[in-house]
Amino acid sequence: MARTLFITGGARSGKSAFAEQLAMGFGAPLGYLATARSLDGEMDARIGKHQERRGTAWHTIEEPLHLAQTLRDQDGAFKAILVDCLTLWLTNLLLLDEEPADDSEERVMADVRQLETTLATMATPVIIVSNEVGMGIVPEHRLGRIFRDLAGRANQALAATADEAWLVASGIPLRLK
Amino acid sequence: MARTLFITGGARSGKSAFAEQLAMGFGAPLGYLATARSLDGEMDARIGKHQERRGTAWHTIEEPLHLAQTLRDQDGAFKAILVDCLTLWLTNLLLLDEEPADDSEERVMADVRQLETTLATMATPVIIVSNEVGMGIVPEHRLGRIFRDLAGRANQALAATADEAWLVASGIPLRLK
Amino acid sequence: MARTLFITGGARSGKSAFAEQLAMGFGAPLGYLATARSLDGEMDARIGKHQERRGTAWHTIEEPLHLAQTLRDQDGAFKAILVDCLTLWLTNLLLLDEEPADDSEERVMADVRQLETTLATMATPVIIVSNEVGMGIVPEHRLGRIFRDLAGRANQALAATADEAWLVASGIPLRLK
Repeated sequence: MARTLFITGGARSGKSAFAEQLAMGFGAPLGYLATARSLDGEMDARIGKHQERRGTAWHTIEEPLHLAQTLRDQDGAFKAILVDCLTLWLTNLLLLDEEPADDSEERVMADVRQLETTLATMATPVIIVSNEVGMGIVPEHRLGRIFRDLAGRANQALAATADEAWLVASGIPLRLK
Repeated sequence: MARTLFITGGARSGKSAFAEQLAMGFGAPLGYLATARSLDGEMDARIGKHQERRGTAWHTIEEPLHLAQTLRDQDGAFKAILVDCLTLWLTNLLLLDEEPADDSEERVMADVRQLETTLATMATPVIIVSNEVGMGIVPEHRLGRIFRDLAGRANQALAATADEAWLVASGIPLRLK
Repeated sequence: MARTLFITGGARSGKSAFAEQLAMGFGAPLGYLATARSLDGEMDARIGKHQERRGTAWHTIEEPLHLAQTLRDQDGAFKAILVDCLTLWLTNLLLLDEEPADDSEERVMADVRQLETTLATMATPVIIVSNEVGMGIVPEHRLGRIFRDLAGRANQALAATADEAWLVASGIPLRLK
């Protein structure tokens, strides 16, 4: 029986900490599927801080692109798998195109639908951390607008399939469903 | 008896789909009052996608500026009228000034108050879709800041007069009132 | 017994008006601790509008930097003190560095922790207004990203210590805790 938990929220809203807490409710060992790519020092520092917070129950798997396949490969290996985070994965996929366009959005949405299919067949519970990125003014650059639309659509799709959905604000989770 | 439903949310949060669902609860025919102006291909594509999703119960009226007057003209012609969306209407009004300033904000707020008065006298229920645009960092440009302030004030005013208010996040509606 | 109320929300979401309403529930006189610095006309106009709305029960104290110390100095002088707002205070502290960096974030977080300690020892109830700034796309500039992270962390810390926490959207408060 598939079990998916979806957690969204703003930057530094405490969504990862809340997701880790939910994951720990499933026992140990736990899989931490990191979609981040260490491209610069800023990112490295952030990844380091997150790893520090998690304990020895966690095993980190780094996969910036093939999220669905990696989940299938790890199915059964952990009590739960935390994906952190959906929006970095979408960014990685989007940036495979030299110049992102409307086609890119549809191409990445095909990967999102694959992920949905995979989640429905997983035996291991999956906790997905995403970001709320659509509550500011319209982004100035086209890439920003495409990313924002893509993230919004992916969030809708995954929250719809999830058994639980939460919005975290100022560290406090609000149950969406 | 006036009946106003107010729906806000981020970009691609599923607020239009939720608003359409609420509207369909009133029966048919339904009015779709589009405030968008097709200025470019990006916008055309988005409008096309939205029209595709709506069925034959809907009649589209395009009005980028005279929202209150159009609502009064259409009062009684439909089981409900969906306004999609408030923030595009505000943008259209704001851009009537060559260089938007604090005066522009107050000028547009006068139109918002007219809209409020109209909503209070409508026999046909009106469902208003708006956008949450104030949860990012301070916009770099003055126009962005004016727009953000204006949208925030208009959202407050319309949510206050509405019988129901909803915030949609990741496709899931949260009841505000 | 310390009593802290934390209110967050987007720009022009009605959070200050709601905070003032909560404060007035404590009686009079009330302290209004303004962290804004009048650097330009835009800001002056906004401060003026806010002061107009508040009545004679309120006494304004302006303090852009030494928030914890000022709260301690004013403890017992009012029925409640409203701090408006946290994010302007964070901005003021951040901009003490000519070029903000990761160090700046940690330096300002030390001030946030001091504020937490102070709040725990206050006899006078304190109502803190903050801003939700993390629900847009990643800011283009490094300063924007540092500010966004800082505001997110400070919001988490203060919401965690608060007795009540609220998220205001379109003028309507949602209870977080």
